[in-house]
Amino acid sequence: MKKTALIMAGGRGERFWPRSRKSCPKQFLSLTGDGKTMIQLTVERILPLVDMEDIYVVTNRDYRELVHEQLPELPEENILCESVGRNTAPCIGLGAVHMAKKYEDAIMYVLPSDHLIKYNAIFLRTLDDAAQVAEEQGNLVTIGITPDYPETGYGYIRFLPREGKGRAFRVDRFVEKPDLETAKSYLATEQYLWNSGMFIWRLSTILSELEKNLPETSAGLQRIAAAIGTDGEQRVLEREYEAFSSESIDYGVMEKAEHIYTLPGSFGWNDVGSWLAVEKIRPTNEFGNVVEGNAVTVDTVRCIIQGGEKLIAAVGLEDMIIVDTPDALLVCDKSDAGSIKKVLENLKICNRNEYL
Amino acid sequence: MKKTALIMAGGRGERFWPRSRKSCPKQFLSLTGDGKTMIQLTVERILPLVDMEDIYVVTNRDYRELVHEQLPELPEENILCESVGRNTAPCIGLGAVHMAKKYEDAIMYVLPSDHLIKYNAIFLRTLDDAAQVAEEQGNLVTIGITPDYPETGYGYIRFLPREGKGRAFRVDRFVEKPDLETAKSYLATEQYLWNSGMFIWRLSTILSELEKNLPETSAGLQRIAAAIGTDGEQRVLEREYEAFSSESIDYGVMEKAEHIYTLPGSFGWNDVGSWLAVEKIRPTNEFGNVVEGNAVTVDTVRCIIQGGEKLIAAVGLEDMIIVDTPDALLVCDKSDAGSIKKVLENLKICNRNEYL
Repeated sequence: MKKTALIMAGGRGERFWPRSRKSCPKQFLSLTGDGKTMIQLTVERILPLVDMEDIYVVTNRDYRELVHEQLPELPEENILCESVGRNTAPCIGLGAVHMAKKYEDAIMYVLPSDHLIKYNAIFLRTLDDAAQVAEEQGNLVTIGITPDYPETGYGYIRFLPREGKGRAFRVDRFVEKPDLETAKSYLATEQYLWNSGMFIWRLSTILSELEKNLPETSAGLQRIAAAIGTDGEQRVLEREYEAFSSESIDYGVMEKAEHIYTLPGSFGWNDVGSWLAVEKIRPTNEFGNVVEGNAVTVDTVRCIIQGGEKLIAAVGLEDMIIVDTPDALLVCDKSDAGSIKKVLENLKICNRNEYL
Repeated sequence: MKKTALIMAGGRGERFWPRSRKSCPKQFLSLTGDGKTMIQLTVERILPLVDMEDIYVVTNRDYRELVHEQLPELPEENILCESVGRNTAPCIGLGAVHMAKKYEDAIMYVLPSDHLIKYNAIFLRTLDDAAQVAEEQGNLVTIGITPDYPETGYGYIRFLPREGKGRAFRVDRFVEKPDLETAKSYLATEQYLWNSGMFIWRLSTILSELEKNLPETSAGLQRIAAAIGTDGEQRVLEREYEAFSSESIDYGVMEKAEHIYTLPGSFGWNDVGSWLAVEKIRPTNEFGNVVEGNAVTVDTVRCIIQGGEKLIAAVGLEDMIIVDTPDALLVCDKSDAGSIKKVLENLKICNRNEYL
């Protein structure tokens, strides 16, 4: 069966400030040190399974140009633009109605644009296995990540080890971000996976699930679909989008649907959720520092230093994050990486939007 | 008696890197936040006692232009330039022979150009008292600072509480930088003062002491004096300077001379020896931070942040020094401020002289 991919690239992630900005969020940054941005890596990774002309990107209209610049080989009409963010259900629906104009039915891979994967071959094998399960009308498949520690920042998927289809396990339920004790207990049961936000299904399946579980959104999507290629396309898209309620696909569809399956992935997945992730995706030197740019370190260990041409001298530092950009510098204790958002709140209050 | 001042401004202090550079050392920086540089403050401070035309500055020839720019009212011929640094004895001698060309005799105040003083009125009163003692031929007077803690980074002066002249005490001896235990014992005796490096004497007295205690240097200085105003002035100056041995006035003259007196000063003296001193000379905010420039702090306490236009965001920091300049950034734990020189050593080894 024909395979398509929808890449979700509308995020405005603030956790990589000051390198990520409202005008250039994380998916458009290179964090791996190879010069490729995360969305470029995402497309490159899926190309052995999906033709370029069948890859669609949904993003905010502010980022249309960025997507076009970073993915010049992607057909321009495959860049779908939201006027406002309405979470993942409308985003996925928008992609699906566009694809359904082109193909009567197809496998649809839904992929975030800002995650990293180390073992591409294993990843592709996993998607392939998932597609086989998803070919059967009505099945919704999600990729679960085998946890290696009790992370409290992710949602979890509880699966039924004795029920399944192909290489996938049947999903019992989705659970929200747990506290540490709960996360530990999840790991102990060996029945929970991390929710990666990657989905595989048939176009016909997801469209019918949207109709069943989110009828208003589905009706709006049909009006959008009817306007595709007409003079009113843009106007209808904007009007319907404004009217959509924010819904995640997890809670809007997956939790209510039957026939949910999960395929455990072990391909070195990293959602690069904050500057701290850089240590996991980049090599550290003998002092445990990850250094990019022009730096001199003296008695400095376990630091993340991300600069450019300017000389950064780090003296006597432990467990710090230093990120230098032309107009803003961050110096942050690793244990306070979560408070970077307070800087942005402060800047918003003071109306210093040039730094957001 | 006529009063003259010699301001010593040849230092290449590295401890304020990256703001201080070889091309612009500490005495030419403004560290107080009022926009005035340290040498400007030094001149301004002494003007109630000494006419501008009787103020001389000895500096390295690399800084002639800087001195002229920062002190445009100082007669150009009063800027005396060393081709190489030979410590304080030749420097003071050079000033003295120039002054002796102008005045048969005079009081000579010798002042470092990179110290701060909070209470100018008390300072001037102290210098006035010192001049009275120094008017008597043969007396060498030094300003001692009443210590308020057992500093190990200064030399000390032991004085004899029962012997003196005017408001000054007779000096028993000069001692080098002590270890902490010794410094504590000094404070306990109440007979030790910090050696401030400020001296007061007659021109005739210091010239005769140089002749007696450093005869070779004195002979060279006389050859320099003979060439002043001639075509060969510059050539003789350079030749003699090259040949001088490095001698501090403390060990070359003061330790060997008789009739040494010290006047205890309590005028809020600070030698601004490192970035840590900034906390003592600048107001701290409610979180104990000293902030200059464009900064946002979150959960950050007791930090010294010195920037400019670039936004500096400090998150979760304690006891850190952050100094941002257009081409170099320093991030340093306060307890490691002494290791800033290791950065400079590293840069020298790598031949990255543009940052020195």
